[in-house]
Amino acid sequence: MAVAVKALFFDVFGTLVDWRTSIAREAEVVLKPQGIVLDWLAFADAWRGEYQVGLEQVRSGRIPFCKLDVLHRHNLERILPRFNIGTLKDAQLRTLNLAWHRLDAWSDVGPGLHRLKRRYMVAPVSNGNISLMVDLARHNGFPWDAILGAEIAGDYKPKPRVYLAAVEALDLPPADCMMVAAHTKDLMAAAALGLRTGHIARPNEHGPGRGETAPSQPVDVAAKNIEDLASQLGI
Amino acid sequence: MAVAVKALFFDVFGTLVDWRTSIAREAEVVLKPQGIVLDWLAFADAWRGEYQVGLEQVRSGRIPFCKLDVLHRHNLERILPRFNIGTLKDAQLRTLNLAWHRLDAWSDVGPGLHRLKRRYMVAPVSNGNISLMVDLARHNGFPWDAILGAEIAGDYKPKPRVYLAAVEALDLPPADCMMVAAHTKDLMAAAALGLRTGHIARPNEHGPGRGETAPSQPVDVAAKNIEDLASQLGI
Repeated sequence: MAVAVKALFFDVFGTLVDWRTSIAREAEVVLKPQGIVLDWLAFADAWRGEYQVGLEQVRSGRIPFCKLDVLHRHNLERILPRFNIGTLKDAQLRTLNLAWHRLDAWSDVGPGLHRLKRRYMVAPVSNGNISLMVDLARHNGFPWDAILGAEIAGDYKPKPRVYLAAVEALDLPPADCMMVAAHTKDLMAAAALGLRTGHIARPNEHGPGRGETAPSQPVDVAAKNIEDLASQLGI
Repeated sequence: MAVAVKALFFDVFGTLVDWRTSIAREAEVVLKPQGIVLDWLAFADAWRGEYQVGLEQVRSGRIPFCKLDVLHRHNLERILPRFNIGTLKDAQLRTLNLAWHRLDAWSDVGPGLHRLKRRYMVAPVSNGNISLMVDLARHNGFPWDAILGAEIAGDYKPKPRVYLAAVEALDLPPADCMMVAAHTKDLMAAAALGLRTGHIARPNEHGPGRGETAPSQPVDVAAKNIEDLASQLGI
């Protein structure tokens, strides 16, 4: 494999963890005992559907940077009325909001990351906050070298600052770092700054057949999953 | 053990790694082939002797925050004339400066941290920069959940911001966090902010018999080493 890099930066939501079925499951765990019945996958889609709206408020400078946990909470409160949910206590809302800390990884991720860590520094470069990344790592056994991403940058992807803060934290030139994501847009933002790019196919991220099966722009490596990425990088 | 916390924050230089004999060894590796002969332990002591001077420039606001790697380089250039070393190339200086990335841990640290990680979140809260912490972790097998400390705070211990940035990154109240260090001063700064404290005896940090064998102020736990800390915390 002709791509010699020292660090691999990982997108997390969608690329490493299956947010959709995990959020559906966690929402059911919290809300069903309250007598609430609804389409749990539709609930997950609606919640994630507000994601870019919240990020854009920060990226545009309309509101100061705040952790993704805070944006998730705003987004949750925005969608609850659509599902006719209006009676939750604050503790229930808090537990529900922390569902994002309990997402399950796709099955290839744990073994793949452990293989990759043998040769590369591995770090999330996600829009998720540090505590969220720590909880996902402990839940799924991700062997991170450091937690990089939005919180240390004070801004959200795909703003350049997030990728550059990660590169600077490890004292590497951008070309020694590869952004790994299931989203071509994320990779193109990294490539524009000189990082290498690795695409991961997640054909079912948004439901069966609703995810990127391949990059829509040229990338350095296109892999079926994280284990395949490790194989293509010669590990 | 009556101290219930969720996260353990670790000082690194002296507490987890033996900077003195490691720097002496690394300096010899780099400088001896240049025909330089000197008292390598005295060289390590002199370099470390400039440490607080550099930090204080940042803490006092006289210079903006910069990574510890940068301060180490300034300090190195300050001591070289004292040892009559004046002819090093920039690449040699850079290799020598990165000696701080190759420090060896005391033998109890690896096993102790792995035990502690089973129940607690574990993170360095050091004045060392992120890349330095990553390299020490890979060199010694430290299983960090996140790299916290000076670089994410933009200031140096014992300034309150460093401890508070770590607490805030994990979304915990200070009382759910324990600072662990071989230096009473570090622990008292953390205690003043509401963190719990764990002292580690390192009687030989600055040479035989020259280190703290016990805390000079009251702490929550006083341990012989990191394995003993794990035992005292019931793990």
